[in-house]
Amino acid sequence: MRNTFGNFYTITTFGESHGEAVGGIIDGMPAGITIDMAFVQNEMARRRPGQSNITTDRKEADTVEFLSGIFEGKSTGAPIGFLVRNTNQHSNDYDNIRDLFRPSHADYTYYKKYGNRDYRGGGRTSARITIARVVAGALAKLVLKEYGISLNAYTAQVGKLAVSRDYHKFNFAEIEQNAVRCPDPVKAIEMEQLISEVKEAGDTIGGVIACVIKGCPVGLGEPEFGKLHAMLGNAMLTINAVKGFEYGEGFNGCSWRGSQQNDIFTSTNNAVSTVTNHSGGIQGGISNGEDIYFRVAFKPVSTILTEQQTINKQGEEVKIKVQGRHDPCVLPRAVPIVEAMAAMVILDAILYQQSTIPMHK
Amino acid sequence: MRNTFGNFYTITTFGESHGEAVGGIIDGMPAGITIDMAFVQNEMARRRPGQSNITTDRKEADTVEFLSGIFEGKSTGAPIGFLVRNTNQHSNDYDNIRDLFRPSHADYTYYKKYGNRDYRGGGRTSARITIARVVAGALAKLVLKEYGISLNAYTAQVGKLAVSRDYHKFNFAEIEQNAVRCPDPVKAIEMEQLISEVKEAGDTIGGVIACVIKGCPVGLGEPEFGKLHAMLGNAMLTINAVKGFEYGEGFNGCSWRGSQQNDIFTSTNNAVSTVTNHSGGIQGGISNGEDIYFRVAFKPVSTILTEQQTINKQGEEVKIKVQGRHDPCVLPRAVPIVEAMAAMVILDAILYQQSTIPMHK
Amino acid sequence: MRNTFGNFYTITTFGESHGEAVGGIIDGMPAGITIDMAFVQNEMARRRPGQSNITTDRKEADTVEFLSGIFEGKSTGAPIGFLVRNTNQHSNDYDNIRDLFRPSHADYTYYKKYGNRDYRGGGRTSARITIARVVAGALAKLVLKEYGISLNAYTAQVGKLAVSRDYHKFNFAEIEQNAVRCPDPVKAIEMEQLISEVKEAGDTIGGVIACVIKGCPVGLGEPEFGKLHAMLGNAMLTINAVKGFEYGEGFNGCSWRGSQQNDIFTSTNNAVSTVTNHSGGIQGGISNGEDIYFRVAFKPVSTILTEQQTINKQGEEVKIKVQGRHDPCVLPRAVPIVEAMAAMVILDAILYQQSTIPMHK
Amino acid sequence: MRNTFGNFYTITTFGESHGEAVGGIIDGMPAGITIDMAFVQNEMARRRPGQSNITTDRKEADTVEFLSGIFEGKSTGAPIGFLVRNTNQHSNDYDNIRDLFRPSHADYTYYKKYGNRDYRGGGRTSARITIARVVAGALAKLVLKEYGISLNAYTAQVGKLAVSRDYHKFNFAEIEQNAVRCPDPVKAIEMEQLISEVKEAGDTIGGVIACVIKGCPVGLGEPEFGKLHAMLGNAMLTINAVKGFEYGEGFNGCSWRGSQQNDIFTSTNNAVSTVTNHSGGIQGGISNGEDIYFRVAFKPVSTILTEQQTINKQGEEVKIKVQGRHDPCVLPRAVPIVEAMAAMVILDAILYQQSTIPMHK
Repeated sequence: MRNTFGNFYTITTFGESHGEAVGGIIDGMPAGITIDMAFVQNEMARRRPGQSNITTDRKEADTVEFLSGIFEGKSTGAPIGFLVRNTNQHSNDYDNIRDLFRPSHADYTYYKKYGNRDYRGGGRTSARITIARVVAGALAKLVLKEYGISLNAYTAQVGKLAVSRDYHKFNFAEIEQNAVRCPDPVKAIEMEQLISEVKEAGDTIGGVIACVIKGCPVGLGEPEFGKLHAMLGNAMLTINAVKGFEYGEGFNGCSWRGSQQNDIFTSTNNAVSTVTNHSGGIQGGISNGEDIYFRVAFKPVSTILTEQQTINKQGEEVKIKVQGRHDPCVLPRAVPIVEAMAAMVILDAILYQQSTIPMHK
Repeated sequence: MRNTFGNFYTITTFGESHGEAVGGIIDGMPAGITIDMAFVQNEMARRRPGQSNITTDRKEADTVEFLSGIFEGKSTGAPIGFLVRNTNQHSNDYDNIRDLFRPSHADYTYYKKYGNRDYRGGGRTSARITIARVVAGALAKLVLKEYGISLNAYTAQVGKLAVSRDYHKFNFAEIEQNAVRCPDPVKAIEMEQLISEVKEAGDTIGGVIACVIKGCPVGLGEPEFGKLHAMLGNAMLTINAVKGFEYGEGFNGCSWRGSQQNDIFTSTNNAVSTVTNHSGGIQGGISNGEDIYFRVAFKPVSTILTEQQTINKQGEEVKIKVQGRHDPCVLPRAVPIVEAMAAMVILDAILYQQSTIPMHK
Repeated sequence: MRNTFGNFYTITTFGESHGEAVGGIIDGMPAGITIDMAFVQNEMARRRPGQSNITTDRKEADTVEFLSGIFEGKSTGAPIGFLVRNTNQHSNDYDNIRDLFRPSHADYTYYKKYGNRDYRGGGRTSARITIARVVAGALAKLVLKEYGISLNAYTAQVGKLAVSRDYHKFNFAEIEQNAVRCPDPVKAIEMEQLISEVKEAGDTIGGVIACVIKGCPVGLGEPEFGKLHAMLGNAMLTINAVKGFEYGEGFNGCSWRGSQQNDIFTSTNNAVSTVTNHSGGIQGGISNGEDIYFRVAFKPVSTILTEQQTINKQGEEVKIKVQGRHDPCVLPRAVPIVEAMAAMVILDAILYQQSTIPMHK
Repeated sequence: MRNTFGNFYTITTFGESHGEAVGGIIDGMPAGITIDMAFVQNEMARRRPGQSNITTDRKEADTVEFLSGIFEGKSTGAPIGFLVRNTNQHSNDYDNIRDLFRPSHADYTYYKKYGNRDYRGGGRTSARITIARVVAGALAKLVLKEYGISLNAYTAQVGKLAVSRDYHKFNFAEIEQNAVRCPDPVKAIEMEQLISEVKEAGDTIGGVIACVIKGCPVGLGEPEFGKLHAMLGNAMLTINAVKGFEYGEGFNGCSWRGSQQNDIFTSTNNAVSTVTNHSGGIQGGISNGEDIYFRVAFKPVSTILTEQQTINKQGEEVKIKVQGRHDPCVLPRAVPIVEAMAAMVILDAILYQQSTIPMHK
């Protein structure tokens, strides 16, 4: 199914940018988990537009309404339906592109695939749809907390400004201290400045988000076609504007020798670990107990405010100039989405793993 | 399911390196396709060990035996079972590592996950299992040919030796002319030399494989969680030793501006195309009719022939020295595997797309 | 996934009887279908409680609100989210059974499985959840109409009162002319009388619903594990209170000889048909172009208004007397649900079948 | 996927009656289970043709060869590939029906669906394909034994000869003592005689198989669309010649009142049970700890040896007279298949259930 993610802990989403509402159904939420509504709403706030100078100016309250699956403050094991009403949608902003295809957007491919065009704010392809992911991710995080698992994503690169690949240098508490969500406070200032400049120019810029998952037990992930990193990569590549995924040393490690990249096992008081973690916490597709580490490449978003050449429905070459309120750099708001998708994958893998353990013994 | 890949055109695989056989079942093969056995066997030959100086010396005939689903030379629509017997397996080569975990291999994670150890040649995690992928990919290619779709993967980087990212400079017919499967004949010689040096040193080296798919219609791929590039990324990340995936400008394009990376639409005689193809042929998760272009990062394989530190089943720190016949660089043999996985994804997407088209009109 | 039905045309449902709302997400709706809202709402009315003397007295407006996937009156190909708010819920009616398990209900099994108890109106196990099925079925019917396929379910038996198995004797237009939804007007009167008597006695009664599908092309259904009748049977068995499914001659035909039950092929002007249709329109799991015919057994619903023995959460034996407004016979309201599930299965099979047809020729 | 059954414990099958081999891949087999080969082969013997006077005279050794997933006598957690070579196939027996469609067989529907015809012994639709189910069921039974779960299917009706519905009257050890696999020794003799008469006449006859599952814990099965009885019904309806499924009181109970059919809960020493078991061990789709009881209707097999009217590929009406060695009554050999499918469903449900239990506590 196109609009469902996951195998055990699943989210099915619906909604368009300028429709009635966006939302989804979470299936597979374990019963008996206390739903911390303040936490969920805070995750929403991290994704919300208008949260800082370097994001879009749109104001959306984005209050989530849960419709089922929670009784007396706890999950019941039944599916959790939820929605966020669309308000403050300015559909008129899009009237002038009703018959035009924005470059590097999904306008053209959707039109050709489905034979219709919801021109208002990107319709189904809008990043607004990621609200459902953030809700499902927030609930997944609540479960993972019970397992002692934590996730931290952060902006690791904007344009050519990049932080160190060695995340041990950072205090993750810094991430939420700046608008760009970068754990390196010095780089954060530079990044914010760069994004402001780009915004000023009516342009956009890309970057890289890194993510560290701590506390995973050994054994998550399935062989062959259910490798944990393949599930993570797949999850990340479904996020709007993502163009690449790597884990451990990734592309960088391609030029290394095996003797440099192998992670040597060591043992202290019967606790096995590796001296280095070039593998990014996953070996043979299965978590090895070390930190899971991966990076996600985001392209500069396609919506720029300067005039571009394009075509219309009739195939005629025309000029397009997009209006509206858009993000100059998607990364700060994408950080919670990366975490949300990762949280769903890890929970899914835990539930999978549990199914394989003989319980009768 | 762990050992099944795909939704419509699926491959389910079985087998261990030193078991009786490896093989699989292809389900969803369209009926009426002529099965060109010579083509299938040639694809197997491209993957086979012992094909050149720079691969492992192991000799495996790897003749595929089809057991069902083909009648009078054509596919019937029934599932296609097939197997390749394991011969020339030297299980004794692995006796000394029976209780040892090879660094950066899946030995440790599998042992912890399943509570048992098939120490012979990597067991289920062996690259030998990819035989089933190559067979399923070969059959997928036969179907794609009927749609006018072709795939070309090639070695784009070994160590720090990289070819140009602009694949238009290459003649793809060159790829099979050298042992390293590189379309740049000059770089190919350098790469071969580097691999030989690495082999001599008992070490291994990584690299990048690029892939170009030509002839895809507009409309392949599904929104939200079935994005075409996510399916491709997922497929690639299930291949042994893969550490990263990117499409279009990928990680490289993160530092660009939107105004640089956007692909401008143009129209000639009613045929829509884009002036550039930074998107890599996919926009909003759906093919746009341009060439699909992606890159896959391979780490240096973990099996090196020099002594390493590790632990044994008892958690004691010991020395390990792996014997046997191994690849110093996995890329030349991985090229057909990348193509095979890509072929399966594209065929899967075509079948999906067909299901959504109203036929009654 | 537990709460999703279908493979291509899917419905994922949420909601509890006394929660905020019930609803669902339809995925795989073909694009470009005009959504006839009056038709959808009429299907809802056929399922609605309080529609006649022989159903429960509860009044529920059950107006469906669509949230996405429809633009300018037509389906867009995007998922269709919808909900029906719960109103007129009398949760107090259930206070006295808060700690009691109603006999032959799912109270006990749910409590043991999930460790919690939503005692209000059956919670997730309420027949109210079938609203989502009726909505998804209504939309499926709109698509099937374009293919020339129609479905008619009807009450074929209540208690021991049964109509003829030969549906050719009936005028299906009669079905909606009586409260019990029986195409035999004489039997309908008897059935209504029986249900009234049972209601009077605070008891309930079971019966059989038959369903006839006309206009299916040859070739729907997949071999081995995707047989069309298995998909229909599975669908019917997910409906509350269903205890059995049979197609064609079903259980009845078990005592026949092959020479009696075989359907002889005949051909008139190149149109193949069978002289008899003991097979119920399906041979080898695949539709053969004849009418599809199946029957579904419903038990008497468990909620009776007389006092019964049971146990409470503490395992103590206690008396239970259920209050509230309940159906004495579920069949009249289940007729549209049977049709809805059948419509979804047939549409699913059509979409599947389309995926397997080579389109390139 | 068409040729895969199950969600967690899955079997994917391949093979045609007169192809090279039939077989499959079992995925999801828990690791560490001792594979009792004698038990597996004995299950095969129960299904094998030629086992008695009242089955077909064909002799097939049907020795299963395991190719993977078993190491040192135990399951490893890797997929288990296996095959049975086709021998003693008399393809010539089918030459005369090469262009003819046998009445009530799948010949016509397959031909129309796939555009080709494997006329030899039914091709993919042959009951020979059920070998793979028996193997997968045998392995599932080995796992279920560890959970203390046992399954017993038996022939409950042949033609009009039926045993009592109260299975408590029977000693299940009697089942394997007669060729018809009926636990009532007196009825067994009558049934055998009837089948012999039918065989003599070149005709066939149908019947009913009942199945009792003992030892299931409370909680198996998922709500809404994963109801345990729906999974069982679906499984049974995929077996060749099956026309109906019912559980508990089934169709019979339709004429009862709720006050008669409800199962009263009782409690002895804190152990909850029900006084009666009209529910067949499943309430609300979830096992309640009582015996699971269901019944499966088999039509008389379509292959009769007398001349019948039919059509050929050209649509011309012709006579057909089938040769070969066929079963007059499929039930005796179908008993192990019913058990095999049920075992797979129950194991699947157990693994599902395990995934939902919070392990961290």
